[in-house]
Amino acid sequence: MEYIKNPMEIENTSMKIIESEMGDHNFTKEELSIIKRTIHTTADFEYKNLVEISKDAIEASKEIFKKPFTIYTDTNMALSGINKMALSKLNGKAICYVNLEEVHKEAKEKSITRSMAAVEKACNDNVDIFVFGNAPTALFKLKELIKSGKANPKLIIAVPVGFVGAAESKENLEELNIPYIRVKGRKGGSTVAAAIVNALMYNVVERS
Amino acid sequence: MEYIKNPMEIENTSMKIIESEMGDHNFTKEELSIIKRTIHTTADFEYKNLVEISKDAIEASKEIFKKPFTIYTDTNMALSGINKMALSKLNGKAICYVNLEEVHKEAKEKSITRSMAAVEKACNDNVDIFVFGNAPTALFKLKELIKSGKANPKLIIAVPVGFVGAAESKENLEELNIPYIRVKGRKGGSTVAAAIVNALMYNVVERS
Repeated sequence: MEYIKNPMEIENTSMKIIESEMGDHNFTKEELSIIKRTIHTTADFEYKNLVEISKDAIEASKEIFKKPFTIYTDTNMALSGINKMALSKLNGKAICYVNLEEVHKEAKEKSITRSMAAVEKACNDNVDIFVFGNAPTALFKLKELIKSGKANPKLIIAVPVGFVGAAESKENLEELNIPYIRVKGRKGGSTVAAAIVNALMYNVVERS
Repeated sequence: MEYIKNPMEIENTSMKIIESEMGDHNFTKEELSIIKRTIHTTADFEYKNLVEISKDAIEASKEIFKKPFTIYTDTNMALSGINKMALSKLNGKAICYVNLEEVHKEAKEKSITRSMAAVEKACNDNVDIFVFGNAPTALFKLKELIKSGKANPKLIIAVPVGFVGAAESKENLEELNIPYIRVKGRKGGSTVAAAIVNALMYNVVERS
């Protein structure tokens, strides 16, 4: 069997196919890199119309990446998908608290999701970018914490997937006056979340 | 803001919504649990028509789960999405070699992908279930290893996503005479891969 075995060749060819099939658009080069990477990770061209990038989001990411920074992810799966080499080159770190024993305990005591308890804990850590690919409850909780002055991130990647609360959790982000990237409606997910973070990093750092 | 905070309530409600919206079907109860979980993790109803379960696949999973077993995943992201509590209850373990130093070295020396080198290594480990959500090259390699008698898994979850080789890698699986679950065409991904593994485990084990 003949097949391409060079990783960068596979990716570059993939990106060309995506661009040729996605049709006309008005994205900037950097916006396009985000859109393409969400399609790359899902093979779902609907993301072309679902991804919404607030006009200050890419600039915000560049500012964040100039200094050591912290990313909080709602799942270990999203964390796992973030390119650690790019992250390390940029002096960033990525954390997820959802599996911590203390978070389990807190969630049980308060009858809330572990994702919510984990976000509450993360708010003590000067998180620069919150990334949600899975848990609407975590995003709802973050919005509450921001409104009550207990959290003040510089960027929110809001792409929970699902049928109960996911779409709603991603609404009204513009009211927070914080740069954001979201996927409208039900779609999204951990792979989409990681893809967006990686696209932002690849805008400013060499891949290898 | 009012939102549901109970994880099992969220999931159960989600599954009811999926079933009510997915329309008529001829799936068995256990097949349906797999289909629903792929839709749950993607919010993409196209999976109803893309997931193909070989007629012996569910039975094969049940046989595998009767004894200690090993799952190999092509990415740490897929590994991360597998429910560790269910896995532990079933005396299973899940491994991924793609980040090992020796795998990096081997891949570089042979000019192949790390995913391929990792699968070659995994073939020495009596893997029961190979799970591919991302790397067509890993699936191509596994097919070669099976044909040359170097691998003999009991089940293959074949759901690489992508534009270069992904669809092709998932073709002709029936020739191997090994039970499989695949997603036809370009779609799939690490979250889909993990969702399928979890659905199979939840068929035989209580969630908590």
